[in-house]
Amino acid sequence: MTTLPASQKLAARPLAPGFHGATTACGLKPSGALDLALVWSDRPCTAAGIFTTNRVQAAPVVLDREVLTRSAGDIRGVIVNSGCANAVTGPRGLEDARRMGELAAARVGAAPAQMLVMSTGVIGVHLDMTKLAAGIEALGRADAQAEPDLVARAVMTTDTRPKTASASVALRGGTVTIAGFAKGAGMIHPNMATMLALVTTDATVDPALLDRALRAAADRSFNRISVDGDMSTNDTLMVLASGSSGVAVGEAESAAFAAALTDVCASLARQIARDGEGATRLVEIVVRGARNEAEAHRVADTIGLSPLVKTAIHGNDPNWGRILAAAGYSGVEIDPALVRLTFGDGAEAITLLERGMPVPFDRDAASKMLARDPSLIRLDLGQGDASATVWTCDFSAEYVRVNAEYTT
Amino acid sequence: MTTLPASQKLAARPLAPGFHGATTACGLKPSGALDLALVWSDRPCTAAGIFTTNRVQAAPVVLDREVLTRSAGDIRGVIVNSGCANAVTGPRGLEDARRMGELAAARVGAAPAQMLVMSTGVIGVHLDMTKLAAGIEALGRADAQAEPDLVARAVMTTDTRPKTASASVALRGGTVTIAGFAKGAGMIHPNMATMLALVTTDATVDPALLDRALRAAADRSFNRISVDGDMSTNDTLMVLASGSSGVAVGEAESAAFAAALTDVCASLARQIARDGEGATRLVEIVVRGARNEAEAHRVADTIGLSPLVKTAIHGNDPNWGRILAAAGYSGVEIDPALVRLTFGDGAEAITLLERGMPVPFDRDAASKMLARDPSLIRLDLGQGDASATVWTCDFSAEYVRVNAEYTT
Repeated sequence: MTTLPASQKLAARPLAPGFHGATTACGLKPSGALDLALVWSDRPCTAAGIFTTNRVQAAPVVLDREVLTRSAGDIRGVIVNSGCANAVTGPRGLEDARRMGELAAARVGAAPAQMLVMSTGVIGVHLDMTKLAAGIEALGRADAQAEPDLVARAVMTTDTRPKTASASVALRGGTVTIAGFAKGAGMIHPNMATMLALVTTDATVDPALLDRALRAAADRSFNRISVDGDMSTNDTLMVLASGSSGVAVGEAESAAFAAALTDVCASLARQIARDGEGATRLVEIVVRGARNEAEAHRVADTIGLSPLVKTAIHGNDPNWGRILAAAGYSGVEIDPALVRLTFGDGAEAITLLERGMPVPFDRDAASKMLARDPSLIRLDLGQGDASATVWTCDFSAEYVRVNAEYTT
Repeated sequence: MTTLPASQKLAARPLAPGFHGATTACGLKPSGALDLALVWSDRPCTAAGIFTTNRVQAAPVVLDREVLTRSAGDIRGVIVNSGCANAVTGPRGLEDARRMGELAAARVGAAPAQMLVMSTGVIGVHLDMTKLAAGIEALGRADAQAEPDLVARAVMTTDTRPKTASASVALRGGTVTIAGFAKGAGMIHPNMATMLALVTTDATVDPALLDRALRAAADRSFNRISVDGDMSTNDTLMVLASGSSGVAVGEAESAAFAAALTDVCASLARQIARDGEGATRLVEIVVRGARNEAEAHRVADTIGLSPLVKTAIHGNDPNWGRILAAAGYSGVEIDPALVRLTFGDGAEAITLLERGMPVPFDRDAASKMLARDPSLIRLDLGQGDASATVWTCDFSAEYVRVNAEYTT
């Protein structure tokens, strides 16, 4: 997996060329902050989506699955609200989601079946359709593109900053752009935990290829992050391809396109992990030397979910015992006598365990290495050649404060 | 599963009649607190043990498995230290554990193969054998039974209080007593997470029956609690049966004996959950209406492990959305349209969800119900007749403080 150059860590535009965005504050958030965004293309797009695997699925998730099943080759846009998840809202919730899509479609001259819907926020509360309708009406009056991160701001809940990423990729027919934005914060876990992400591209991509590329990208990005192990009712990752660049992605270009899509998704995923509720830094865990990637992922994921590991990192405590113990209960048949644990990477890496045994190390240096952002943890299982990377964050008392006080 | 009468919530004696206990502070804990306990019987005992399933196993766990495999019918006692886990200590650690057992055996005139060993504390540090040997020597000079909870105190690490439980059961041949003590605090999760528990009885029980009864008891007690989902390298649950009462447990009495053993283990398990690091209350989650007990357990366990649920309980926030979402990602095919969620039990229960939909409820009353100790959460899946109970604790900022500062 490629790493984004440092320049791409700066805020990127959230939308590919040719896509429009408009935002407003319609009052779904009591704070008066932005809570509604419409993203659309003048040309019909192909689309693909990946949704929460939670058995409890929010109304917009149910609706979008239906829309994409019917016509993933003819989509015009996505309407997104924050402040209300429209989850556990029964048949009325589904009707509200449908109506939300219809109103947004009408706003840009599209058919209802061409509009996708995303919601995030409080569960079990019906959408205030009066406010929402007025908000969608007001969207056209906003200056859509004045601030590139406005759509990314409008989807935030407990996020502390907007999350955007973009990449350009040169293909045979020309250069295409992939750009996206996301929201995360709590309930983050592999298999599409609480997060919304919308990626757009000006490439021409047929729906089947787009779906394949999106699944490959999610497997190396959103499915590799965790904040607290909770998984929400609303998780959605969507990609829209407008073809406005006139550059087509065929089978020959699919690998390059998928790699760029993975880069964008991985950047968004890391931004989500970095901005986990109460987090002070990004933690990158690489497990190497596994018999296969699934085992490497499972060990890395178990370490990344351990509250004891995450609190130790927060305290800059080089507590390798907790990391080794987590690897030990991951369910993978590791051989403790083979493992090697280091903090940091390359020449400055500090080794804590060698062949399963503690080695003397400079405690202050290890503590300082842990305190870096990102904090790098490397575990070699010594059993094979496979590896996997996961991203998480440290675990602070602030996480508890945020989540003990966030109202239902 | 039977519930212990209120009287048994009071501190019980940690040892069954006929067992001796001695404790000392040998300096393994820098604080100077008690850190060594010897429990022994003058008569040979049968014994059974259940150990961590972590792939990283501490030296005393390796040793005890060996001892029990060789002679579970001829055990004289257990030596326990806190302050050092003797885990990830290699061949030298195993030698140290063996020597620790030998010294303790010699102290009570037993053979080395008759002595079991338990350790808890910091991982990756060798036992200070000089201090330990002096401590074992000093044990005989302590007044063993002056304070019934001393052995329970000597095993504590971040526990805030000693944990003891006992029960008497009338069998055909007479009454037998079962008594136990445990330590818990962090790294608590089903499948024998970080905890040590030692149960003794004056009944005569053959090793195979004792092992069966212990496994049944663990399934309904220690395997039903969680604090943080972490699992340690040292978890051990052991039972010793001395037969000093002269009352034998045969096949006819095995159910009654196992039920009483389960009561003692469940009380200890609840005390461990209640005393989770930073916890302010016990949380009891009962999932009913499941298709089978395994599914009920899985749903209850997923809810009990959710940081979002546990922080909401800490904040007295009746956030049913997080409970439902956790049930939804448990991996069990629940039908959200069938679930019923209540806080509290019996006549004063407050219903939050009925047939999967929110129902109006008194928010203040629900908040007060959550604030009780224990906090009772009941979820009916509406799919069958099976049920399961798990115990956990609320999740406070204090948990983070404790674990960010506990030194390796």
